[in-house]
Amino acid sequence: MPETSRGPLGPLPPVNGTSVPRFAGSTTFARVPEIGQVGDYDVAVLGVPFDTGTSYRPGARFGPMAVRQASRHLRPAFHPELDIAPFDEIQVVDAGDVPVTPYSIDTALGQIADHAREVARGGRRLLAIGGDHTIALPMLRTVVREHGPVALVHFDAHLDTWDTYFQAPTTHGTVFRRAFEEGLLIEDHSLHVGIRGPLYGRADMDADKRFGFRTIRAGDIDVLGLAGTIQAITERVDDLPVYLSVDIDVLDPAFAPGTGTPEAGGLTSRELLRVLRGLTGLHLVGGDVVEVAPAYDHAEVTSLAAATVLFDMVSLMAGRSRKA
Amino acid sequence: MPETSRGPLGPLPPVNGTSVPRFAGSTTFARVPEIGQVGDYDVAVLGVPFDTGTSYRPGARFGPMAVRQASRHLRPAFHPELDIAPFDEIQVVDAGDVPVTPYSIDTALGQIADHAREVARGGRRLLAIGGDHTIALPMLRTVVREHGPVALVHFDAHLDTWDTYFQAPTTHGTVFRRAFEEGLLIEDHSLHVGIRGPLYGRADMDADKRFGFRTIRAGDIDVLGLAGTIQAITERVDDLPVYLSVDIDVLDPAFAPGTGTPEAGGLTSRELLRVLRGLTGLHLVGGDVVEVAPAYDHAEVTSLAAATVLFDMVSLMAGRSRKA
Amino acid sequence: MPETSRGPLGPLPPVNGTSVPRFAGSTTFARVPEIGQVGDYDVAVLGVPFDTGTSYRPGARFGPMAVRQASRHLRPAFHPELDIAPFDEIQVVDAGDVPVTPYSIDTALGQIADHAREVARGGRRLLAIGGDHTIALPMLRTVVREHGPVALVHFDAHLDTWDTYFQAPTTHGTVFRRAFEEGLLIEDHSLHVGIRGPLYGRADMDADKRFGFRTIRAGDIDVLGLAGTIQAITERVDDLPVYLSVDIDVLDPAFAPGTGTPEAGGLTSRELLRVLRGLTGLHLVGGDVVEVAPAYDHAEVTSLAAATVLFDMVSLMAGRSRKA
Amino acid sequence: MPETSRGPLGPLPPVNGTSVPRFAGSTTFARVPEIGQVGDYDVAVLGVPFDTGTSYRPGARFGPMAVRQASRHLRPAFHPELDIAPFDEIQVVDAGDVPVTPYSIDTALGQIADHAREVARGGRRLLAIGGDHTIALPMLRTVVREHGPVALVHFDAHLDTWDTYFQAPTTHGTVFRRAFEEGLLIEDHSLHVGIRGPLYGRADMDADKRFGFRTIRAGDIDVLGLAGTIQAITERVDDLPVYLSVDIDVLDPAFAPGTGTPEAGGLTSRELLRVLRGLTGLHLVGGDVVEVAPAYDHAEVTSLAAATVLFDMVSLMAGRSRKA
Amino acid sequence: MPETSRGPLGPLPPVNGTSVPRFAGSTTFARVPEIGQVGDYDVAVLGVPFDTGTSYRPGARFGPMAVRQASRHLRPAFHPELDIAPFDEIQVVDAGDVPVTPYSIDTALGQIADHAREVARGGRRLLAIGGDHTIALPMLRTVVREHGPVALVHFDAHLDTWDTYFQAPTTHGTVFRRAFEEGLLIEDHSLHVGIRGPLYGRADMDADKRFGFRTIRAGDIDVLGLAGTIQAITERVDDLPVYLSVDIDVLDPAFAPGTGTPEAGGLTSRELLRVLRGLTGLHLVGGDVVEVAPAYDHAEVTSLAAATVLFDMVSLMAGRSRKA
Amino acid sequence: MPETSRGPLGPLPPVNGTSVPRFAGSTTFARVPEIGQVGDYDVAVLGVPFDTGTSYRPGARFGPMAVRQASRHLRPAFHPELDIAPFDEIQVVDAGDVPVTPYSIDTALGQIADHAREVARGGRRLLAIGGDHTIALPMLRTVVREHGPVALVHFDAHLDTWDTYFQAPTTHGTVFRRAFEEGLLIEDHSLHVGIRGPLYGRADMDADKRFGFRTIRAGDIDVLGLAGTIQAITERVDDLPVYLSVDIDVLDPAFAPGTGTPEAGGLTSRELLRVLRGLTGLHLVGGDVVEVAPAYDHAEVTSLAAATVLFDMVSLMAGRSRKA
Repeated sequence: MPETSRGPLGPLPPVNGTSVPRFAGSTTFARVPEIGQVGDYDVAVLGVPFDTGTSYRPGARFGPMAVRQASRHLRPAFHPELDIAPFDEIQVVDAGDVPVTPYSIDTALGQIADHAREVARGGRRLLAIGGDHTIALPMLRTVVREHGPVALVHFDAHLDTWDTYFQAPTTHGTVFRRAFEEGLLIEDHSLHVGIRGPLYGRADMDADKRFGFRTIRAGDIDVLGLAGTIQAITERVDDLPVYLSVDIDVLDPAFAPGTGTPEAGGLTSRELLRVLRGLTGLHLVGGDVVEVAPAYDHAEVTSLAAATVLFDMVSLMAGRSRKA
Repeated sequence: MPETSRGPLGPLPPVNGTSVPRFAGSTTFARVPEIGQVGDYDVAVLGVPFDTGTSYRPGARFGPMAVRQASRHLRPAFHPELDIAPFDEIQVVDAGDVPVTPYSIDTALGQIADHAREVARGGRRLLAIGGDHTIALPMLRTVVREHGPVALVHFDAHLDTWDTYFQAPTTHGTVFRRAFEEGLLIEDHSLHVGIRGPLYGRADMDADKRFGFRTIRAGDIDVLGLAGTIQAITERVDDLPVYLSVDIDVLDPAFAPGTGTPEAGGLTSRELLRVLRGLTGLHLVGGDVVEVAPAYDHAEVTSLAAATVLFDMVSLMAGRSRKA
Repeated sequence: MPETSRGPLGPLPPVNGTSVPRFAGSTTFARVPEIGQVGDYDVAVLGVPFDTGTSYRPGARFGPMAVRQASRHLRPAFHPELDIAPFDEIQVVDAGDVPVTPYSIDTALGQIADHAREVARGGRRLLAIGGDHTIALPMLRTVVREHGPVALVHFDAHLDTWDTYFQAPTTHGTVFRRAFEEGLLIEDHSLHVGIRGPLYGRADMDADKRFGFRTIRAGDIDVLGLAGTIQAITERVDDLPVYLSVDIDVLDPAFAPGTGTPEAGGLTSRELLRVLRGLTGLHLVGGDVVEVAPAYDHAEVTSLAAATVLFDMVSLMAGRSRKA
Repeated sequence: MPETSRGPLGPLPPVNGTSVPRFAGSTTFARVPEIGQVGDYDVAVLGVPFDTGTSYRPGARFGPMAVRQASRHLRPAFHPELDIAPFDEIQVVDAGDVPVTPYSIDTALGQIADHAREVARGGRRLLAIGGDHTIALPMLRTVVREHGPVALVHFDAHLDTWDTYFQAPTTHGTVFRRAFEEGLLIEDHSLHVGIRGPLYGRADMDADKRFGFRTIRAGDIDVLGLAGTIQAITERVDDLPVYLSVDIDVLDPAFAPGTGTPEAGGLTSRELLRVLRGLTGLHLVGGDVVEVAPAYDHAEVTSLAAATVLFDMVSLMAGRSRKA
Repeated sequence: MPETSRGPLGPLPPVNGTSVPRFAGSTTFARVPEIGQVGDYDVAVLGVPFDTGTSYRPGARFGPMAVRQASRHLRPAFHPELDIAPFDEIQVVDAGDVPVTPYSIDTALGQIADHAREVARGGRRLLAIGGDHTIALPMLRTVVREHGPVALVHFDAHLDTWDTYFQAPTTHGTVFRRAFEEGLLIEDHSLHVGIRGPLYGRADMDADKRFGFRTIRAGDIDVLGLAGTIQAITERVDDLPVYLSVDIDVLDPAFAPGTGTPEAGGLTSRELLRVLRGLTGLHLVGGDVVEVAPAYDHAEVTSLAAATVLFDMVSLMAGRSRKA
Repeated sequence: MPETSRGPLGPLPPVNGTSVPRFAGSTTFARVPEIGQVGDYDVAVLGVPFDTGTSYRPGARFGPMAVRQASRHLRPAFHPELDIAPFDEIQVVDAGDVPVTPYSIDTALGQIADHAREVARGGRRLLAIGGDHTIALPMLRTVVREHGPVALVHFDAHLDTWDTYFQAPTTHGTVFRRAFEEGLLIEDHSLHVGIRGPLYGRADMDADKRFGFRTIRAGDIDVLGLAGTIQAITERVDDLPVYLSVDIDVLDPAFAPGTGTPEAGGLTSRELLRVLRGLTGLHLVGGDVVEVAPAYDHAEVTSLAAATVLFDMVSLMAGRSRKA
């Protein structure tokens, strides 16, 4: 992280919600500064409006817009559960959206990686707002380029380690097999949390295990408890650099209707947030929140959950910075 | 169950979601074959688009359509929680919809029973997609005709054992009293799960007990736990033939907004699915999922939950077949 | 409570749902009599369609209408969890809506207090349907005038003890600081339940503590359990007169999308109802359900939850009356 | 019309929207008095929450509730297009809802007719809010009993003169054939306006003609113009007593999505209102607005159109009263 | 058209809506037979669930499903405006969906053309349900292969003759330039109807003219009138073989909210249907209805309009057959 | 207009939709530059998120956000109906939102006027996005300060010249009486277009006339035609400086469901746009589009119509600039 990221007065804070109403003004994530407004930054939030990797209901291209819009509602100064004022600790900026073609997965992967690389240069940390889960691959490539291979903590209803879909190698259901094959993931330190739902075959699970993933299924959480789940994750990733990828469909459709491949029987938003808030020691070097498809959302339920997850990621990064 | 239900190559499977996208093609439940496509079958899924028995918000006549549509989303080959590939074990077919009049409850009851009898002939098992809960009566008559009286496992917010509604004897709130009176239910082996909400009077509960039902209220589940609930059900029904009736309003309105008589304080979809998945030994001879009213649904949240319940019922039937 | 509140035949009951369908007829809360239909009453439900105190999504002015409409669905005679037929025990009436200006907070506060005072005169108990949370201040003034200072039991995602918002002293985020300053609350006997979400600053919590509030955060409930939460509340308020204020956003947005300032990670409706039903000994002298904004609701999920909460409050009042 | 319908101070007016906000208070149609609040009345608005006659999307049982709710929005004192203050001219009341069973068409028809007869006794005029179009039959029976056979002016996408549906003689698609057969309609003086959409067969139209109806199809209006349409209607009915039945699906689905059997290619709401406002000389003795199914509505678009139509009917009745 | 398309008893008709309720049974377009149910056919309706060519709101992949579902509502025997019973005249079948990849435009184009060619073989006529407008290109290739180059009658808000979008040559905004370049369109006999909205530049229109298109803008219809518009179209295409392509966004967003690139100021559904019904002499050899994106629809307003357009196309084909 | 508003290279254009997809990047109106990005400008678009002046359904505070979001969809380079590339002619910027309190109408009026004055200084022209119609008063004060009194061209369902609402002098229903009283409007040169719906009394119209307004009612447009309407407007305002205020409820609720006080029988969006496009000679010095309440909108139908109206206003200003 760059030494120079804060000026003498500390980070430039978000717009103050008590002087500018939250329904007015800035359209950045949590109303933090735009990337061009500060000299340097620790963490950049980057929109990746791409959904051509979707296998069922498309629309996550409008995810960045919806998550930013919902994030207006956050009172951004202080996170009481984590006891931190993240924007006092680190400089967070909104880096806007990657201009990305919807017409070619390969071209888009390149556009995302190129753009992300610019923003991440110098070890700055990235948090992406998807977009469908395909975007995690160029994100991982970028993060690994800066920080070396990572342990993946992956919240999702689905494994996303299928081989191909209709001959396409890189889709929202195959990204983590590709990432494993490319050596982006540290073997035996990654895990899926929240998996559930029927599969194309038993072999899906076997393949996943071969790639060194551990899986905490949605039902396992009832057995492990939230504390046990937190412990399982922290033991798995240890102090390794972590990429945290949250597919919003890890939540039950009641909590996240606005997504492309919903699965009944998921987590509540309270469960998800409590697990995230238990990961305070995590060495978080990058992450994403993906698969918010606003056309299926209602009353911003899904995008607000996603915005809150992102705020928690920022706060985890800030907390670790403080300790370090 | 007919010996001949599988050909030498085993059951005809559902359409393969990796070659035909799930948003294309077949409109049957879970994209299984239509009834006319196979010589014989073990289990038939039957739509019963009838909602004239509804006392509050109508619209469950569109339930079969909506549940089938949501079921496209299921990856149908393998059920990881139950460790079974149901469509490899038994031949499941979609028997289409009963053509049923909306204008007379009595005529409709006859149409449903006649149609169901044809499909069930020879001990084939039926799973109905409602429609409102009234349809459980002709379903029970059909199932009992083939398998003898049954233990009823009934998930619902409501007892459905009222006497009459506005003088009508057979409505979605009175079916199980009628079933009891007709001797369709094995006494002292039936139970309700998930009951909650205000009643017309204390006597409602007393009557219900007189008919030999046990009740696990929604709040009891907090005390029993899911394991205790599963145990209570399995003890209650023993190895008797079971009819499993799931009124989707057993779920909280957050999980099942698309229903006619929602009640706050219900189950989560994860709870319901976990209880169902605990019933692996059940001798399931028939069942239904009812009261999906799509006009009140959002983003297919309700119909996807119902489709998942139905897939679990099929898997339970397949699992028992395997053991047998 | 007036001795004369019941005639020789007992209270005038709600419209009977088995003779008049619940989708027809009376538009009062739970179809109880209008205030003019009875000579006297124990409890009056009062609509307060005011939302000018809202800081984010407005629309709670349509709350009374929506909650009454959803309350049609309640079968009103018997509450099985509390084992009481509330409308047999006490005379409940619907006192209609306060005619309240949307254009001036100060004028509106006066209109509400004046109107409420008339309805409450003689120690009759009030339950308000909001409206935004601002209405709790004139309600408290009215209740305290009749019953003396109260212990506040406050279910909410937010503390509502901020100082001012854009210079305005009385808004939906500042009411309980004002109430404390006016001496309406008994010190050290009030508490917040369900609090969560980011704050404007750490000082928000300190101020709140200075006003003598205890806080049970949403996450604390996972630790305390529901029984522990109930115990904490009852110990806190003892046998003091209690005002029970339920901001519907205490529920997770999945359970209450129809509200103005939703926060991810909230209670389920089953949790909220179970806690309320644990408060049977409460000396409840007044209360409100606020912040239902129907334009953001879906399938009446939110307004039905609010109507059920209100029915529980009535039942708690009736139970205490019976014991007394 | 009864001589005594107005007191010395004239009719009791609706609640004043400039002192009680339109989002507060009274829930009657256009906030007119309830039937019990005045000694006598000229016109009664009656809710008929019945939809068991529906052949496709049910839900019109919630029509009376939705139309009354939308009617709050009307500023009720003066109708500028008709240059009349209807509630100054005649006493209009809201007679509440008929308590009507959803379980038997025949029983319901009797309940509606019995109830309507009480309200209409003495030649008072009725305006019904449906409910599905089936309710027009008992309404016609009631009106004819008071006023003799009527000319029918029928706005609808459908003829509603089919013979039977699934053996049922009285449904929302067959009412006007039944009415004709019973002699309720004056032969050769009735007409349909706005008809469109495919039919079960060419014979449908021939049958309709045999019953003495004239038809102005939706497309004919493009040729006749609005003035020509008005003229065709007034010539057809002359000065005969008229029953005016408006199925809201006469509007295009864009203007009335909230209905059970929508047909593309319909009227705009401006066209419908202009035609109605051209019928100032009509001898209107009764009428209805039917088929508002709120579960399919959005932002009250449909119910507001229906409420406006009803307000126009009241104004037409008031205008004729003034002239007479 | 094959001589043998009808058996001695004439075409196999759609399911009869008076014996099987329209909300039950068959899921084909207008409930016509599936392609496998008849020996031969004149016209096949083909679903093309592809939307990767979309530049703004995706989701048209669910168009075939939604349009078929809405088409249930059509009473399919007789078209009164065209005075024809189309399914008596010609054999219409539903050929199901093309299984088409969402991940590669080029692969998908091939899949669509291959599949369509099979169905069209022998001069059978095709009507496609999109999918986005990209699908018109493989459809045109197929139709031209059977019938030679065609005159294009194109209803749309947009020209769809841009050159490339983000380097992609074949997208929903460029198909007709590609079609022109390939020689699929007869020069100087094609036209656009309903064009409106801002452009990327003035050059867009010039290019379009160079390709030999005539344009009737939405505003021109106010000047030409509907009769003039019909005349302009028929003069333009003369008796040439016509491909009729209807992008549902030719309708105003009020009439077709469920689409990907809505433009204010469009046609009403009555206008569109009247123009189509004026084209009775058209030598229609193929067509499509595209860009229905159900996630943005409400109450099936858009999909019902599209289904009605498709029924009109079938009826135009049947009428021409009768004359020939 | 400042001479210096364009650099040597002409105005800084909007983001190019063919290189950055319209679903990505800039969140300004039509993706024009932010005010800080250019040295000078001709026209500034200003969001005014204020809705405390609303008398019925609130929510227009989210109007600026929604209209900007919908404006992404505009291809911004060329307006074919007006034959102009507005952003080549004049420098248009987005000036962001006024930070405005929701808690006091008076304070808010001051905040809006102060902020607007800064932006308008030097004769720059303003176009406001509301917010409710109350905002027109501070906008008029600002515009008149720069340009002198104006002729008002006012599209609306309502006159907005009531005196007070619940004692409040400045609300969305009273602004133009206040403006007249303050001498902001040139007498006898202002007019309302699209007025309809019931009134509180006949006197409402008389008062309006006394203030020198002419009214073209919605129904008058059927008589005048669109050309006649355009002529009436241009004759009325002559070459005087004009303020153009468009309340989106001038459209029928089918075209603008997302508004606070909808009235049946309104204009279509094609009619409104054609009238606006007929006003090419107008000396437009300021304007607004108000009353978009997104919580009641669907599929951005309303906000897209509003964004298109705003784009037309910009184009009218650009056209006049070119001529001058």
